[in-house]
Amino acid sequence: MRSDGRQSDQLRQVKITRRYIKHAEGSVLIEVGDTKVICTASVENKVPPFLRNTNKGWVTAEYGMLPRSTHTRTQREISKGVPNGRTQEIQRLIGRCLRSVVDLTKLGERTIWIDCDVIQADGGTRTASITGGCIALFDALTYMRKNNDIDTMPLKDFIAATSVGIVNNKLLLDLNYNEDSKAEVDMNIVMTGSGKFVEIQGTAEEEPFTPEQMQSLLALAKRGIDDLIKIQRTYLGETLLDKYL
Amino acid sequence: MRSDGRQSDQLRQVKITRRYIKHAEGSVLIEVGDTKVICTASVENKVPPFLRNTNKGWVTAEYGMLPRSTHTRTQREISKGVPNGRTQEIQRLIGRCLRSVVDLTKLGERTIWIDCDVIQADGGTRTASITGGCIALFDALTYMRKNNDIDTMPLKDFIAATSVGIVNNKLLLDLNYNEDSKAEVDMNIVMTGSGKFVEIQGTAEEEPFTPEQMQSLLALAKRGIDDLIKIQRTYLGETLLDKYL
Amino acid sequence: MRSDGRQSDQLRQVKITRRYIKHAEGSVLIEVGDTKVICTASVENKVPPFLRNTNKGWVTAEYGMLPRSTHTRTQREISKGVPNGRTQEIQRLIGRCLRSVVDLTKLGERTIWIDCDVIQADGGTRTASITGGCIALFDALTYMRKNNDIDTMPLKDFIAATSVGIVNNKLLLDLNYNEDSKAEVDMNIVMTGSGKFVEIQGTAEEEPFTPEQMQSLLALAKRGIDDLIKIQRTYLGETLLDKYL
Amino acid sequence: MRSDGRQSDQLRQVKITRRYIKHAEGSVLIEVGDTKVICTASVENKVPPFLRNTNKGWVTAEYGMLPRSTHTRTQREISKGVPNGRTQEIQRLIGRCLRSVVDLTKLGERTIWIDCDVIQADGGTRTASITGGCIALFDALTYMRKNNDIDTMPLKDFIAATSVGIVNNKLLLDLNYNEDSKAEVDMNIVMTGSGKFVEIQGTAEEEPFTPEQMQSLLALAKRGIDDLIKIQRTYLGETLLDKYL
Amino acid sequence: MRSDGRQSDQLRQVKITRRYIKHAEGSVLIEVGDTKVICTASVENKVPPFLRNTNKGWVTAEYGMLPRSTHTRTQREISKGVPNGRTQEIQRLIGRCLRSVVDLTKLGERTIWIDCDVIQADGGTRTASITGGCIALFDALTYMRKNNDIDTMPLKDFIAATSVGIVNNKLLLDLNYNEDSKAEVDMNIVMTGSGKFVEIQGTAEEEPFTPEQMQSLLALAKRGIDDLIKIQRTYLGETLLDKYL
Amino acid sequence: MRSDGRQSDQLRQVKITRRYIKHAEGSVLIEVGDTKVICTASVENKVPPFLRNTNKGWVTAEYGMLPRSTHTRTQREISKGVPNGRTQEIQRLIGRCLRSVVDLTKLGERTIWIDCDVIQADGGTRTASITGGCIALFDALTYMRKNNDIDTMPLKDFIAATSVGIVNNKLLLDLNYNEDSKAEVDMNIVMTGSGKFVEIQGTAEEEPFTPEQMQSLLALAKRGIDDLIKIQRTYLGETLLDKYL
Repeated sequence: MRSDGRQSDQLRQVKITRRYIKHAEGSVLIEVGDTKVICTASVENKVPPFLRNTNKGWVTAEYGMLPRSTHTRTQREISKGVPNGRTQEIQRLIGRCLRSVVDLTKLGERTIWIDCDVIQADGGTRTASITGGCIALFDALTYMRKNNDIDTMPLKDFIAATSVGIVNNKLLLDLNYNEDSKAEVDMNIVMTGSGKFVEIQGTAEEEPFTPEQMQSLLALAKRGIDDLIKIQRTYLGETLLDKYL
Repeated sequence: MRSDGRQSDQLRQVKITRRYIKHAEGSVLIEVGDTKVICTASVENKVPPFLRNTNKGWVTAEYGMLPRSTHTRTQREISKGVPNGRTQEIQRLIGRCLRSVVDLTKLGERTIWIDCDVIQADGGTRTASITGGCIALFDALTYMRKNNDIDTMPLKDFIAATSVGIVNNKLLLDLNYNEDSKAEVDMNIVMTGSGKFVEIQGTAEEEPFTPEQMQSLLALAKRGIDDLIKIQRTYLGETLLDKYL
Repeated sequence: MRSDGRQSDQLRQVKITRRYIKHAEGSVLIEVGDTKVICTASVENKVPPFLRNTNKGWVTAEYGMLPRSTHTRTQREISKGVPNGRTQEIQRLIGRCLRSVVDLTKLGERTIWIDCDVIQADGGTRTASITGGCIALFDALTYMRKNNDIDTMPLKDFIAATSVGIVNNKLLLDLNYNEDSKAEVDMNIVMTGSGKFVEIQGTAEEEPFTPEQMQSLLALAKRGIDDLIKIQRTYLGETLLDKYL
Repeated sequence: MRSDGRQSDQLRQVKITRRYIKHAEGSVLIEVGDTKVICTASVENKVPPFLRNTNKGWVTAEYGMLPRSTHTRTQREISKGVPNGRTQEIQRLIGRCLRSVVDLTKLGERTIWIDCDVIQADGGTRTASITGGCIALFDALTYMRKNNDIDTMPLKDFIAATSVGIVNNKLLLDLNYNEDSKAEVDMNIVMTGSGKFVEIQGTAEEEPFTPEQMQSLLALAKRGIDDLIKIQRTYLGETLLDKYL
Repeated sequence: MRSDGRQSDQLRQVKITRRYIKHAEGSVLIEVGDTKVICTASVENKVPPFLRNTNKGWVTAEYGMLPRSTHTRTQREISKGVPNGRTQEIQRLIGRCLRSVVDLTKLGERTIWIDCDVIQADGGTRTASITGGCIALFDALTYMRKNNDIDTMPLKDFIAATSVGIVNNKLLLDLNYNEDSKAEVDMNIVMTGSGKFVEIQGTAEEEPFTPEQMQSLLALAKRGIDDLIKIQRTYLGETLLDKYL
Repeated sequence: MRSDGRQSDQLRQVKITRRYIKHAEGSVLIEVGDTKVICTASVENKVPPFLRNTNKGWVTAEYGMLPRSTHTRTQREISKGVPNGRTQEIQRLIGRCLRSVVDLTKLGERTIWIDCDVIQADGGTRTASITGGCIALFDALTYMRKNNDIDTMPLKDFIAATSVGIVNNKLLLDLNYNEDSKAEVDMNIVMTGSGKFVEIQGTAEEEPFTPEQMQSLLALAKRGIDDLIKIQRTYLGETLLDKYL
């Protein structure tokens, strides 16, 4: 049994609050156990230079942590003056993943900014950002659709993410901070509603891992993501989904 | 009557949620109408260089806004690469105000960081930060007192802040964003529980204002702050206060 | 009596040297006691993006201190790499104040840059910048008027600034550095030639102050600014003023 | 057949020139087809703050590209003023991988800096950096061993990396720039001499990929890395290896 | 005849005002024609890291221009965020030159900061900075000597600088801005009171120049610098000099 | 005899490898003794703002050093966050020199970027960059000429550079790092194929030098540059040169 009483293949409790920030076209507060992230989706009527005059849109993400979202206070990036490598790596990942389920040609020359700001961190902030960002993105696209800014729904599939890892030689699903900080292997997996891989990032923190362990981790992640996609569907409601996806 | 139905001398509804972020020594979510700010107080066991070996502590503040706390998305400061002038002005103000009600000699060589992060903005974010920051600070000091890190409570008084202004030639208390954006005069007032001034910042945005208008604005602010201090007392509970303040 | 022999309600000696820098459209060296600031006004034939195609102009200010204008050498901002919070706060203040007496619609799409560079500091550098900047601005506008760049004079009124404060429990006008560094309360007041307030910024550095003290400080400041406006008028010469203001 | 005549499971030609830069404790020029990277290993007699007084050492990496290593000239990072997200992601990867095969407790309080500078880029610069960095690291450790700075060899295993991907629906090993730029799936794999995974980073650039494709890609990568490890052994020479590894 | 009526081998009028800034240990306003530079010398009781525990001191310089010292307004370096290449080149030159006439072992572990801030520019700001900086440095060293901070005078010789150039095929001494901006060749020469070279920087802006022209330029510069050294001696007064140099 | 066995007036061995980087329009590896610099010339079809619509082109240079090109590892500029003063000074010099032998009106509105990246440093990196950059520039211009991008060859002459100095009171040509680091006087000279000066930068590191020493250094440099120009001609081949220069 894990420190928080979960089974090794059990997700933490997931709670999604839609329309959390009144100004944003899409916004959710996603809670995965004690990890809490505000995800907003903002529509901007222009695209980065490399897409101008292509009739295609763009989806990009930014990620941040409130200074005291962490156990001890973390200095703000702007106070250091330079963007943090970890931050950039995470926001590039989130953007890449969400773009993979959007048909950019249906967006028109618009950018959707996904902002994921961690207000409380307990492991898995980047995967929670992807899972929550998908809902914020869905809501912003629905907003645009209702507004007749776009003709058809550009979202091609659901997308969700979780972590798996090896801790004290045991394979675990959805690591919290405590587990993550002592993991021998840590892997983030991003998959679609149709069970395909979008991204896999696995790292041996202490000891390299075997091909057999790799297989088990992939299987464990698959189970978790299937559950997350079900949770997303529940929060969005089937009727709405039938209509738009 | 104002757009949100308030009287000219009426505060917006204030809601304070204590212990909002589990890691912080003190933390609140303060809501003043649609303005929502997370205030955390973090204790660090060292002081800035100019206070080393003085046996005195320090209280300092940092302020931020989530990109989509605003009507249209605001670029992150770190993306621009330089700290924003407005941000710095606000965090210097918050720090100065909270320091004015703390006996720094009772803190020992410790710094209390007050982080005020706006998750939804509708005017008055800096004054909400001061009013909420006071509670987060109180909770962190109480935590330190219970921990026997400090012998006596360093907080000397309550502190709260609000805005007053002239909009369409009418004097208003506690301006929301809509009112603030068309105000002829905008003034932020910070006062203590004992009715003294800590800070006053008044600006004629369009037209200079007369000494008579100045007097009326001061009186209006006084009434609002008296109410805010009552609200702070209610949230903290009289018993606790008798014990520590 | 004060350390420099002044009465509590007495300004320091003010000296204004016009046309101090040959390249600038307007430029003055203002000396307020030992505080010396070079103020230049530079006309640029474009406006910031938010004013393009509005037929309105802009007035903005920048402020700096030579490294050894201060008692001990101050590091250059560019050596630190980040703009200083105090600097930004001051230059925002100067810009706001000078804009309040200019009819921006009469400027056309032009920006007037007011640069205030302190070459020797002895307290009150921001208020000296406003008082001196007003003359540099006047001279630049007169230059534009003579040049037929503008049809009518955009300056609506004079503007001047001074500080008041409480030092050792006494109320003083126009604090020098020595007084400022030990002041219990420090307040900067900016007023127009017609006796209206443009800006008020009061801070309790050590102890909050009472409403009665607030009233006395406001009255003291009023007297000082009336004198400063008279000095400005003297330096500009009545004839010229009748013609343009 | 591929544009450069290779079989789908064939590596590009690999050439390693040891002792390429005379000042460095270890240095190689690694050429993988037309991709050319200078890898140096520099020994510094101190560790980052978090390792002080732990008797452990550190291995860290930095990565750069000469401006014209690329098809069109790339602006220098320092000209832009901010570190590039891709650069930081790559150098974090290289450092993490090389650390995984070093026993840091055997290094003493020393840092080994691995600098990987791409002088000509044709795809696979990060994987070439890892493969070449391993040799530079080996040479620096041997240098330290001969110098009696360390008592035993801290290197635990070889490490090498390559890419696999799906291009036009075909699975390919070791993608060059042309293949990489049109890949549907791109995966970097890092493995040890004993056939274990250190890192896996797979990304669906256009279309998510199936679990079956994942399996085939892993197998293809394994074959490539086995060959790379053989090449490393050849360049180092068996005798030397027996002695030190 | 030149535009300002000078002979080709004639310096502009030089005026030096000592003790110009009251806080600095040494300070001058140097005026060379319409070029005006404030030079201050500040004594700091520490040295850069590479000199710690060597018993040697350091002399370093910083250079800046007020935004409207130039014909059209120049943006502040801090507004751009990066130090300017020209600024750095100039301040490295000034520091190097002044160090060459100071016996650093006689300074003790102290740094003298020479700040040269141009308030009005009309060509030759870097050479005026060196000529004026020498006097500010002398005054600071005299201050230290009187204070018994140092036992003997560390200044070994005078130092002064001027420019020579080829304009419209004519060789000119001490170019003003107008001449400098159309010069074919521009050369800055720094020499000591004993007629030796400290620095020479010559640049063919348009056309390379012959060895014969080089010889004539060196001779012309020599004459100008001899005059500048005489002017320095006059301002300092022979008696004082006999005593200290 | 010098530490590397050379006569005092003898250049180090020079080796030039053309077409060193496949992507660049012009590229060389220049080796001057143990100093090795990769010089690339990249053609860009636009010019800096100040040249737009002038029908003129531009030549500019950037300079960098790999971290371990030096005896001990040098931190990357981007890691420090600010461009290095020495780097900027050198790249401004290289750009200025190469521009002096190009007829910019024959380039059309194009910029040629000369990137000089030091992969191994042993003194004289800036002069090697100029000598090698000239060849890379020649090759890029030849490429443009063959491509019919330009009608005639814009190169007006050859250009090469070397250093001279005084070490232990002896005059030496082409200082290596060891000599340079203990030189009393260090001078960089840039001349054309027709024996004219483009740039001269001489610095007395320790002791000012006499006019007679200046003359001897100029003569020594002249001899060295004549040799370098011959070497450049040899590498380019006379036939090609007759055709284009």
